[in-house]
Amino acid sequence: MNLDRLGRVRANLSREGLEQALIVDPLSIWWLCGYYTEPYERFLALLITPGKTPTLFANRLFPDASGCGARVVTFDDTDDPVRLVAAETARDRPLGVDKDLAARWLVPLMEAGAATGFVLASGAVDDARSIKDAREQDLMRAASATNDRAMEWLVDQVRPGVTERQIADGLLAEYRRLGASGHSFDPIVSFGDHAADPHHEPDDTPFVPGDMVLFDVGCKQDWYCSDMTRTFFTATPTEHQRAVYDAVLRANEAAEEIVRPGVTFAQIDRAARSVIENAGWGPAFTHRLGHQIGLVDHEPGDVSSAHDEPVRPGQCFSIEPGIYLPGDMGVRIEDLVIVTEDGCEVLNRYPKGLTVL
Amino acid sequence: MNLDRLGRVRANLSREGLEQALIVDPLSIWWLCGYYTEPYERFLALLITPGKTPTLFANRLFPDASGCGARVVTFDDTDDPVRLVAAETARDRPLGVDKDLAARWLVPLMEAGAATGFVLASGAVDDARSIKDAREQDLMRAASATNDRAMEWLVDQVRPGVTERQIADGLLAEYRRLGASGHSFDPIVSFGDHAADPHHEPDDTPFVPGDMVLFDVGCKQDWYCSDMTRTFFTATPTEHQRAVYDAVLRANEAAEEIVRPGVTFAQIDRAARSVIENAGWGPAFTHRLGHQIGLVDHEPGDVSSAHDEPVRPGQCFSIEPGIYLPGDMGVRIEDLVIVTEDGCEVLNRYPKGLTVL
Repeated sequence: MNLDRLGRVRANLSREGLEQALIVDPLSIWWLCGYYTEPYERFLALLITPGKTPTLFANRLFPDASGCGARVVTFDDTDDPVRLVAAETARDRPLGVDKDLAARWLVPLMEAGAATGFVLASGAVDDARSIKDAREQDLMRAASATNDRAMEWLVDQVRPGVTERQIADGLLAEYRRLGASGHSFDPIVSFGDHAADPHHEPDDTPFVPGDMVLFDVGCKQDWYCSDMTRTFFTATPTEHQRAVYDAVLRANEAAEEIVRPGVTFAQIDRAARSVIENAGWGPAFTHRLGHQIGLVDHEPGDVSSAHDEPVRPGQCFSIEPGIYLPGDMGVRIEDLVIVTEDGCEVLNRYPKGLTVL
Repeated sequence: MNLDRLGRVRANLSREGLEQALIVDPLSIWWLCGYYTEPYERFLALLITPGKTPTLFANRLFPDASGCGARVVTFDDTDDPVRLVAAETARDRPLGVDKDLAARWLVPLMEAGAATGFVLASGAVDDARSIKDAREQDLMRAASATNDRAMEWLVDQVRPGVTERQIADGLLAEYRRLGASGHSFDPIVSFGDHAADPHHEPDDTPFVPGDMVLFDVGCKQDWYCSDMTRTFFTATPTEHQRAVYDAVLRANEAAEEIVRPGVTFAQIDRAARSVIENAGWGPAFTHRLGHQIGLVDHEPGDVSSAHDEPVRPGQCFSIEPGIYLPGDMGVRIEDLVIVTEDGCEVLNRYPKGLTVL
């Protein structure tokens, strides 16, 4: 059990008037007590209660959890884990619940009267996870360094006839060769106007020289995630293409320029969005500027106009403006940054100036 | 919109006294209206209300949903989808909710007073999805035929020095070559006593001639899943090894033998478990006998002692007894079956008799 992290979570819970919380995100459980398993449809939860050692509820099919520092309650597929949890909660108080707790467990917990009320309490964990300590920052840097090197490999794969899917499918082995354990999300490889769909799934489209090429990829390495996007030309860009690329690049740089403690996520989004709006493509930048990242690719607290909180040292997020012109082209340029005491550190070193392969 | 499927879901809801339900499982949404996207942390839901066309709530970042037959309500990352849903529900009646609905949406829906109560209603969809129609049965057969062929490829990879992970990582390309779109779950490749952990994750362990080898793999093809396990010897088995294998094989066959409409899931589990208990390894068969399968690898309604319902024609599930002896060996033999009018059809044709590679 990481007592420092547990203490930060408990302090956050307390600020919300909560004394008990049920955490089900397997990575939050790992982050707190070092025990990890993917439960799929089975039940796995860590119950935090005041003054007591947290209790881990784990199916006996899972790897042995003893030694993780939590009190461990195990059960079989034929047992009802809701009953076991309800026997441990303080029924005369509200229970904080993880945002990922599925209705299949939450509704029966309510029916069992496990607490006086059920309130979302993930914020207490998410807030603590959002601030990366020195060790975590090193791991974020290392994962992004691997991603920079993977981008070199990706660029080498761009040859006439190769398909989006072939490149995407080959990336896992390259990540493994570089020391990563796998993808942090399904890689996006987009040729030509496929890049105009920000969530394009690689398909059997072959590369034709002259196509623009977008790679949005990330790996997991020692539990922590990377995520970077680069967009390349493979023929001399037209004036229009150059102008679009330039607007996205300037938006990316404008946002990275202003990141420092006290500036809000919304202001960072605005800095990038203003550049693209002023260039005339505002409506073609269809998504938030970025997302926090850590143990998963998308962590709570996005970089968007709706998020008014100031950024704090140790937070890590993406800066990924894009312009999407269906039937024509798409450009996105994405880096990860860590907020420092007086600015930010950009984790991605792979060049982002306009490049013709 | 598949009106036959929608009608079956509505009839099931009605039997539970419900008139409205919020479905969030992306595959249930696809199964009902042919629209698919993976929403990750964003909101996607289909609201079924009495007498009206269902309403699909979709983020504008998702692929265009028009043409799916549902009324479509779209929103941005900065909108609150809970408010949009609460504006459409009948607030004076209970709302059925999908078991997968996360607390991040369910708790705010409750706080918004979107209904008089919230009850788990996935059963209505799961029950309808559980009964595969003729077209779905053909797709299940095709996916398992591909899996049978993939097992031939897997066996060919077993050479001195190859690692579990190398074989597991290579399987995706083979599935693709055979016409599948991907894995239905992360493949399990276990050498030696790694097979004693039913959920072993492939690692860098190299194959040493003489090791037993277990493959538990499945593909997705045209949306439907396969799932099969075979365990092989690579040296003449000892008497002990032969006895363990024989007990698992007889358990598999005993269960498949008794499947027919009216027999309960629990009776099928018992048929297999009795064989293993009588052979003296009851405690080493640590999990349920099987799970239903279709659009995902594990569908609700497992084959276990806790599931007293009779099986019905069109249902498809795994029969996968195992004996796990940590530090020694593990054997599992798994087929998929479809319940017919008077028995069952075993979908896997790959031989399961004791084989020394």
